[in-house]
Amino acid sequence: MIIYKSTDWWEALSHLGSSSIIRLLLKRVLFVGLYATAVTAASVQFSQLIFTVDKEFFSFLGIMLSLLLVFRTNTAYDRFYEGRRLWGQLVNNCRNLAVLLHARLPADDHANRTYLAQVLSNFPIALDGHLRQGVRFHKLAEADSGYVEELKLADHVPSRIASQLQEFYERLLEEGLILPTHLITIQRHHEALLDVAGACERIQKTPIPFSYSYFIKGFITVFILTMPFNLLDTYRYLTVPITMFGAYALLGVEMIGDEIEDPFGKDSNDLPLTQLSNRIRANVHEILQVDLHEEYRALADAPYSVVF
Amino acid sequence: MIIYKSTDWWEALSHLGSSSIIRLLLKRVLFVGLYATAVTAASVQFSQLIFTVDKEFFSFLGIMLSLLLVFRTNTAYDRFYEGRRLWGQLVNNCRNLAVLLHARLPADDHANRTYLAQVLSNFPIALDGHLRQGVRFHKLAEADSGYVEELKLADHVPSRIASQLQEFYERLLEEGLILPTHLITIQRHHEALLDVAGACERIQKTPIPFSYSYFIKGFITVFILTMPFNLLDTYRYLTVPITMFGAYALLGVEMIGDEIEDPFGKDSNDLPLTQLSNRIRANVHEILQVDLHEEYRALADAPYSVVF
Amino acid sequence: MIIYKSTDWWEALSHLGSSSIIRLLLKRVLFVGLYATAVTAASVQFSQLIFTVDKEFFSFLGIMLSLLLVFRTNTAYDRFYEGRRLWGQLVNNCRNLAVLLHARLPADDHANRTYLAQVLSNFPIALDGHLRQGVRFHKLAEADSGYVEELKLADHVPSRIASQLQEFYERLLEEGLILPTHLITIQRHHEALLDVAGACERIQKTPIPFSYSYFIKGFITVFILTMPFNLLDTYRYLTVPITMFGAYALLGVEMIGDEIEDPFGKDSNDLPLTQLSNRIRANVHEILQVDLHEEYRALADAPYSVVF
Amino acid sequence: MIIYKSTDWWEALSHLGSSSIIRLLLKRVLFVGLYATAVTAASVQFSQLIFTVDKEFFSFLGIMLSLLLVFRTNTAYDRFYEGRRLWGQLVNNCRNLAVLLHARLPADDHANRTYLAQVLSNFPIALDGHLRQGVRFHKLAEADSGYVEELKLADHVPSRIASQLQEFYERLLEEGLILPTHLITIQRHHEALLDVAGACERIQKTPIPFSYSYFIKGFITVFILTMPFNLLDTYRYLTVPITMFGAYALLGVEMIGDEIEDPFGKDSNDLPLTQLSNRIRANVHEILQVDLHEEYRALADAPYSVVF
Amino acid sequence: MIIYKSTDWWEALSHLGSSSIIRLLLKRVLFVGLYATAVTAASVQFSQLIFTVDKEFFSFLGIMLSLLLVFRTNTAYDRFYEGRRLWGQLVNNCRNLAVLLHARLPADDHANRTYLAQVLSNFPIALDGHLRQGVRFHKLAEADSGYVEELKLADHVPSRIASQLQEFYERLLEEGLILPTHLITIQRHHEALLDVAGACERIQKTPIPFSYSYFIKGFITVFILTMPFNLLDTYRYLTVPITMFGAYALLGVEMIGDEIEDPFGKDSNDLPLTQLSNRIRANVHEILQVDLHEEYRALADAPYSVVF
Repeated sequence: MIIYKSTDWWEALSHLGSSSIIRLLLKRVLFVGLYATAVTAASVQFSQLIFTVDKEFFSFLGIMLSLLLVFRTNTAYDRFYEGRRLWGQLVNNCRNLAVLLHARLPADDHANRTYLAQVLSNFPIALDGHLRQGVRFHKLAEADSGYVEELKLADHVPSRIASQLQEFYERLLEEGLILPTHLITIQRHHEALLDVAGACERIQKTPIPFSYSYFIKGFITVFILTMPFNLLDTYRYLTVPITMFGAYALLGVEMIGDEIEDPFGKDSNDLPLTQLSNRIRANVHEILQVDLHEEYRALADAPYSVVF
Repeated sequence: MIIYKSTDWWEALSHLGSSSIIRLLLKRVLFVGLYATAVTAASVQFSQLIFTVDKEFFSFLGIMLSLLLVFRTNTAYDRFYEGRRLWGQLVNNCRNLAVLLHARLPADDHANRTYLAQVLSNFPIALDGHLRQGVRFHKLAEADSGYVEELKLADHVPSRIASQLQEFYERLLEEGLILPTHLITIQRHHEALLDVAGACERIQKTPIPFSYSYFIKGFITVFILTMPFNLLDTYRYLTVPITMFGAYALLGVEMIGDEIEDPFGKDSNDLPLTQLSNRIRANVHEILQVDLHEEYRALADAPYSVVF
Repeated sequence: MIIYKSTDWWEALSHLGSSSIIRLLLKRVLFVGLYATAVTAASVQFSQLIFTVDKEFFSFLGIMLSLLLVFRTNTAYDRFYEGRRLWGQLVNNCRNLAVLLHARLPADDHANRTYLAQVLSNFPIALDGHLRQGVRFHKLAEADSGYVEELKLADHVPSRIASQLQEFYERLLEEGLILPTHLITIQRHHEALLDVAGACERIQKTPIPFSYSYFIKGFITVFILTMPFNLLDTYRYLTVPITMFGAYALLGVEMIGDEIEDPFGKDSNDLPLTQLSNRIRANVHEILQVDLHEEYRALADAPYSVVF
Repeated sequence: MIIYKSTDWWEALSHLGSSSIIRLLLKRVLFVGLYATAVTAASVQFSQLIFTVDKEFFSFLGIMLSLLLVFRTNTAYDRFYEGRRLWGQLVNNCRNLAVLLHARLPADDHANRTYLAQVLSNFPIALDGHLRQGVRFHKLAEADSGYVEELKLADHVPSRIASQLQEFYERLLEEGLILPTHLITIQRHHEALLDVAGACERIQKTPIPFSYSYFIKGFITVFILTMPFNLLDTYRYLTVPITMFGAYALLGVEMIGDEIEDPFGKDSNDLPLTQLSNRIRANVHEILQVDLHEEYRALADAPYSVVF
Repeated sequence: MIIYKSTDWWEALSHLGSSSIIRLLLKRVLFVGLYATAVTAASVQFSQLIFTVDKEFFSFLGIMLSLLLVFRTNTAYDRFYEGRRLWGQLVNNCRNLAVLLHARLPADDHANRTYLAQVLSNFPIALDGHLRQGVRFHKLAEADSGYVEELKLADHVPSRIASQLQEFYERLLEEGLILPTHLITIQRHHEALLDVAGACERIQKTPIPFSYSYFIKGFITVFILTMPFNLLDTYRYLTVPITMFGAYALLGVEMIGDEIEDPFGKDSNDLPLTQLSNRIRANVHEILQVDLHEEYRALADAPYSVVF
């Protein structure tokens, strides 16, 4: 994810090349430009290719397409922002869990404090991997002997970590370290972990319905292919840059929507899951007053320019 | 449901034929083409059929129609996505129920663990059938002797399964396996089962108000029927493909909206309820550490191309 | 409410006459047609009535009006769907209450089971009447001797039924049939009854602000009255059908919005409250294993074509 | 607030004069009419004031302005409806509190019943005043000797009444009239009182950001001032009524938005807070079976035409 | 934040200069004016720079751009209003916490009352700093000896204050001043503190995806650069003011969106966090009946014109 100061216009323009989707867009616009050049050249040769055009009808179709694209943009952005909101809930619930148990656990109960801090921190790290290329087990804290090895046996790692935490609460209850009343609040924070995991899976595995996607792609393709014919009688050779500008506008909205739709990849617009996991780890350790290696704490405040 | 990678433009184009709604759309567009050909041929014969046209007025009506269609699209998509969100909640709550009871039930209490895993897994399988062609009882796990036979007597199968689970929690409470405090959390997850079932029934049984639907269909019909007359004076024989393209755009949005609206069918855009039920079964069994037949576990990871 | 299969285009067209709002719309469109005929006839007589027209300006005003009408449509539909959602919650919470108490009440405690099933079923039936023409007391089950007579004394019948249920829970608590813990869950389902009742009253008693409504009606009226003058110079006698089509589009959206806005009437677009009440009664009786008269059970599955 | 039957078109038209915002709108439209007359007269004198005009560009700007105005309308309406929703929650939570405590308090405990009914009814009455011209202390019930005098000392009266209720619950708990379990539900309803109060304050004290408001006002002003110049070459003297119609449309949406935005005033579109407070008082007294003066009960059903 | 009466049109116009974003906008519009003048002058010199233009195509692109800008406006406003809503929740939960504990703590327990009032008031003050230029520790109340010094050691100050409050509740529980039941409600209010903090961080650190932002900026830039060429053939020298007006409209929406997006700065459109913190402090002290210095109470009612 590229973090930028949105009020600075020129700086934003300078990031032109760093976004892969922008580069692909420009490539496609170039391709449309070649097509428009061919059409224009042919029409100059064979003048019967130049029609009188019903510009209002073409413009109505263009506005209809724009409305569909804004609908598409909206749904894509909603997924992106819901993803961010979910990870925000993860941050909040991990912090709240840590705050609650910090106040209950004796200040010198290092064993329980460390176990909790490590397993709780492992959850977002595992979820990050689960949503991307697979869980990276070497990144997880070894909270117990054989802990990571056991996790490797699980099909659904986040569920397994949630079970470990649940077993931990039950142990605290048995040892009288928390009261039954505390469990009610703890459960509310705890269940948020799997709720977030499930909701992220939902966003990732449910693209916009195929028919819509195909329908819009078909609409755009025909619209752009006919665009030069609609401009030729007015613009002649200027048809080429104008067609390219129109293609830029239409393809751009569609392509960015496609990319934003799954916010858990590693594109320049995707959410910084790793960064957020690091921050949760640092926060949870600080709240529970468990030492965390300096290097890990530094990761929480990684320079905020391009983060993953 | 067709699962596809939305950033791949060409692959999406190649799925042209696999969506029944796209095929029906193309058929209707062809039909409009025949009509436009007839109008054009007649107008060439009897030139008084060619009018001067107020293109701005026609374009304003078209934009108004587009706005209504985008509204329609929005409501249809909201139902589709609400349906998905509900089944996502089902996943989350089943997992959370399993995690909580896994931590309470003794590790060697195979009877209770198996009963819970089976009845909990039966719920989404029964709901899948309930929302589609009727409950397929042979798919349900025989959690008890005579269990499935008894279920067949129920009018509303999901309610009956929810009652069984509720009786199970009460039994655990009586046997002291859970504390009253646990019941508070369990109930919150448990009630989500019937909430999801009821909300799915609501989506399925409440179409968009009849007047809107009829009104929009009437609007589109007249608009498309008059379209050739508005294009004839500019385009002559080109009127035919251009009318077809316009009809494609308008009919497409309306028809896809109609199809998306009920996301519980078995169309190519409908939700993969069976797939999700299989995944819940696999997750719940893994969390509760109950063996599940290899074949059933495989279903949870069925190849993700066209799933139901 | 007309229930229909939204993908079947021709069947939808055939329901033309059964919707009173569609009939009123067609009547008004006819009226606009007469007006347009008069204007056209006069203009043919006195040709100075034919102006040169700024079609773009008229079209811009039309698009602005369309945007306002889509906003209006959205708010009206939101009320309609919120109403449906609320009754869906009523279904869910009644089922959940019944499931919970079914698991606690001894299987042979017919008195309590019957009382609960009847009073719980009375709530939606009373709310249906409360939101429509007044509570129909003869439809309520006589849960106790003198029960219905006592209800007739209440100003706000739904609140009174909610109080009866609350007293019932307290009695169960006293008799030790439920634990204090159960009350926490029961209360959450129980309070939904009055929440739904209050929210339905809110929808019913808060129309869209008067200024908006008047403003839009004024805008449409002037716009339609000037429409023939804008079309005359292009279309002459064709002005009449085209004005009627334009009036159909504009009046239709506005009128349907007005009708949908209060979804608790008995129009063809209104919610099937009675049908839903019958279904709740059947579900609650089945879950609590209380016999329900065959005739009443049949009402729950009334043929799904035009229901109230 | 003017309550009206939204399907009755002519009745709505007849309320023309009773809405102050509509009157102000008509005044401004008249003012624009004078300006347009001056421009037209001058242009007839000095014909060089008549330009050739790029009507499409003007129309594009108009559509852009319309889109912004619909956005403005949406945000204003959202505040209005959120305000209504909040007061609806107040109704629901007061009723639910009364239902719960009615079932617990002994039927003959008149002292507690009366105290609760009066203090609970005072909350919405005080909040009504707090959001409008200041709390009208003479409207509050004297629940205790010196009760109202003590309230007058408070800076934030709604918080003080909430504290009184909280102290009342604690007293009931101490006297064993409610169990700790009941407190959990009571708190949930009780906290809604201050949540509603705070949310109403938020709506009231947070106008739409200044820049947006100014920006839109600037846009409209310039757009309307240039409107006659864009119409002159087509319409000559007809420019005046057409400009006035355009100004009606644009100013109307903007002005109604401004008015709706704060729904707690006493304009004809504002929420009937006093009416709702009276209804809460009547409901709460009926549920708790505490007598309420006939006159006060009548206020709850005040004729529903113009209410505050 | 500039607080203004939105119905007063002229007053709003007079604030022209006080908003920095409006000033920057006017500067940019001036810049576009210079560019348009240069283009116009050149085109008068070299008349071949004047093209025939396809005005409908340009207008379609403009409408598409408008739709994207309204989408942008919507997302920016949603963040602004979510920020306000979050701080409103902070107000409500602090008040509710104070009300609940006021009713439990003995009236003469000054130590606990003061400690709670001060630490609870410190939370919003610290969050205000945390979201802006850093926590201003001298603004925090010294609730304990060495209290502020200890806070300075924390990385994440709001979490630390939340921990202090949590420790305080546990102490009250141990001393029997609250029952376990109370903890359930307290926790619900308490966790809102960190939820609000986390959500504010989310809004602040997640700009709109870079691709969208860049894409829209690129679209606007090209659109405005080509605008004079589209107007030249109709307007000649009038092209300059008309281009400036168009640039005002387009740049304005985009720039205000950029500014609103992060509502936690100190711009004239940003939320008055300091003012809200002061109000929470005054409310909490009043509810808990703890004296607050006159000067601090005055800050809660600071004149409502430009507040931070």
